[in-house]
Amino acid sequence: MAVRRHAVILAGGAGERFWPASRAKHPKPFLKVLDGKSLLDATIARARRFASRDCVWVVCGMEHERNVRRATGLPAKRVLVEPERRNTAMAVGFAAVHIGADDPDAVLAVLPADHAIPDAAAFVRDLKLAATAASDAGALITLGVQPTRPDTGYGYIQVGPAASRQHPRLRRVRRFVEKPKAAVARRYLRSGSYLWNAGIFVFTAAAILEEMEVGAPELAKALAPLRRSPRVRSGDRVRRVYRRAPSLPIDVAVMERSRRVWTIPVSWHWSDVGTWLSLAEELGVAPGESRILDGEVVFDDQGGNLVWGGRRAVALLGVEGLAVIDTGDVLLVTKLDRSPDVRKIVGRLKQQGREDVT
Amino acid sequence: MAVRRHAVILAGGAGERFWPASRAKHPKPFLKVLDGKSLLDATIARARRFASRDCVWVVCGMEHERNVRRATGLPAKRVLVEPERRNTAMAVGFAAVHIGADDPDAVLAVLPADHAIPDAAAFVRDLKLAATAASDAGALITLGVQPTRPDTGYGYIQVGPAASRQHPRLRRVRRFVEKPKAAVARRYLRSGSYLWNAGIFVFTAAAILEEMEVGAPELAKALAPLRRSPRVRSGDRVRRVYRRAPSLPIDVAVMERSRRVWTIPVSWHWSDVGTWLSLAEELGVAPGESRILDGEVVFDDQGGNLVWGGRRAVALLGVEGLAVIDTGDVLLVTKLDRSPDVRKIVGRLKQQGREDVT
Repeated sequence: MAVRRHAVILAGGAGERFWPASRAKHPKPFLKVLDGKSLLDATIARARRFASRDCVWVVCGMEHERNVRRATGLPAKRVLVEPERRNTAMAVGFAAVHIGADDPDAVLAVLPADHAIPDAAAFVRDLKLAATAASDAGALITLGVQPTRPDTGYGYIQVGPAASRQHPRLRRVRRFVEKPKAAVARRYLRSGSYLWNAGIFVFTAAAILEEMEVGAPELAKALAPLRRSPRVRSGDRVRRVYRRAPSLPIDVAVMERSRRVWTIPVSWHWSDVGTWLSLAEELGVAPGESRILDGEVVFDDQGGNLVWGGRRAVALLGVEGLAVIDTGDVLLVTKLDRSPDVRKIVGRLKQQGREDVT
Repeated sequence: MAVRRHAVILAGGAGERFWPASRAKHPKPFLKVLDGKSLLDATIARARRFASRDCVWVVCGMEHERNVRRATGLPAKRVLVEPERRNTAMAVGFAAVHIGADDPDAVLAVLPADHAIPDAAAFVRDLKLAATAASDAGALITLGVQPTRPDTGYGYIQVGPAASRQHPRLRRVRRFVEKPKAAVARRYLRSGSYLWNAGIFVFTAAAILEEMEVGAPELAKALAPLRRSPRVRSGDRVRRVYRRAPSLPIDVAVMERSRRVWTIPVSWHWSDVGTWLSLAEELGVAPGESRILDGEVVFDDQGGNLVWGGRRAVALLGVEGLAVIDTGDVLLVTKLDRSPDVRKIVGRLKQQGREDVT
């Protein structure tokens, strides 16, 4: 029997570093920042090339269910709604239990909803290769992106020897490394044996649930009631399960602990579009070159800026390397290279109870 | 008979470097930028301490007559309305003819409507001293401000010897100098014999009109029909006069050419508040110290910025030395030290026919 491929899109992240465009009620996956499409739209489009129509799933929070369904056109039964946010391990576990109930050998590709991967064809080719290997070998496969700069905002994967004769491109993973310091990141880049951890994973439902038993027993224990009634996908039982579930990233809960983890090194362009800076890079902002996401820039003598202008005419004089983001109720002006700290602003505003602007 | 003192407030300037807050229909004198008062309000208040209630005049363009009257409460007869803009020499000539018709020996203090002079008491004291000297000697007196930095945005006055035994603080003027280069400005500052030309002048109506005959005959010729019917202050005759009048600054037309020009060196703080930078200085913006003219700044980690936030919550991350000016329809972000170039933006937008944002 051919491998049954499913795409499980995780749309749970808030994208706080995209404030003020990204808000609690309108988070990052819904932002139309690349070619006028939302990141979620683009992810769905890629997923459709990997999985058949009835094998594309989205996992999201209750507050986003309506928006997800409107944006994607998915039927209710393929939107898995989490009653509380419990990080990615639980989201993947929920999907694996649900999909695996019908077909434990189904291959799941776990795809964050808010990444940029311009070369969809190359991406889908490698994802299918990973799916075949995951199916053949029962491995947990993580996509490892060839780094192009010593980025300190990504986690890294140290590549080990070839994983199997049958799948020569697959490699064992020696270890996962958290976001490194700059000097360490430079060493990784030079060494050639480190890849970016893109947070894109491929495994069978059976394999990931088994490895959760081993690596994250408290998670497996929380999932047990769902496994006993895998067709229950909402209501009190799911709420009780979520209330008790640990909040863990899938990387930490399973991938970093499992002995069955392989990686497929890929060289196509990928970005998690995590900050205004990385979006600026995606859009081609460079010294002297500004990019306008929306609105009208009537003057900009230096360039090198990212502007989301809303309904105002924007004039920039003598400034460069800035993001100017105007959402009508909030105006953010930040140095692009400081934009990862935008989450500090959001954190402080939340502390102050400013739901009106977060 | 005691000297009859009049204050003639010139409210003709557009203040383009204060764009986008300053607009064709809402120019700089009307901006509430200091202590919540408009610059015009503050100028009127100072004028009232120099001249009696019925001796305070404003000269303005037709498009601002309503606003001037509403803002100042002046009766129509003391607002001299120019049918076209013809620079300051014509505005002063118009006022001198009109006021001088009743009283040629009346002393006029010519006051730009949009300057900042925090120490009104010291200012009025010196202005009265100048008025007495102007009345006694028939001199044209310009207030010369002791420079505190080598400013290249102001014109300078080179001070000559004492002007008269009777008025020991008054000095002859050796020459007027246009805005100098930085090195020259530094030399002026060191020399101690140069003062800033504040554009504040004191003379009798008779003296200024006489000196216009000598220094600016084409101006005097244009004014002649008004002098023959000095009580005509509007209508076709005034329009015809203005159509033919030359457009000259009073400095160039008269002060720089006359041999009767004295100066009174003053050391109180004065600024023409010509740019966002100079306003920032007035307001005490300094490294680490931001100032908010309006609106709500919810985050500002560096300081040193000037914010006019309109109705938006403003967040500033990693930026300093900026002016962020939001007028609802236009957003300007400029380095404060580039703010004199704001007029270039206005010039370009006018060329493009963008009346909507100029």
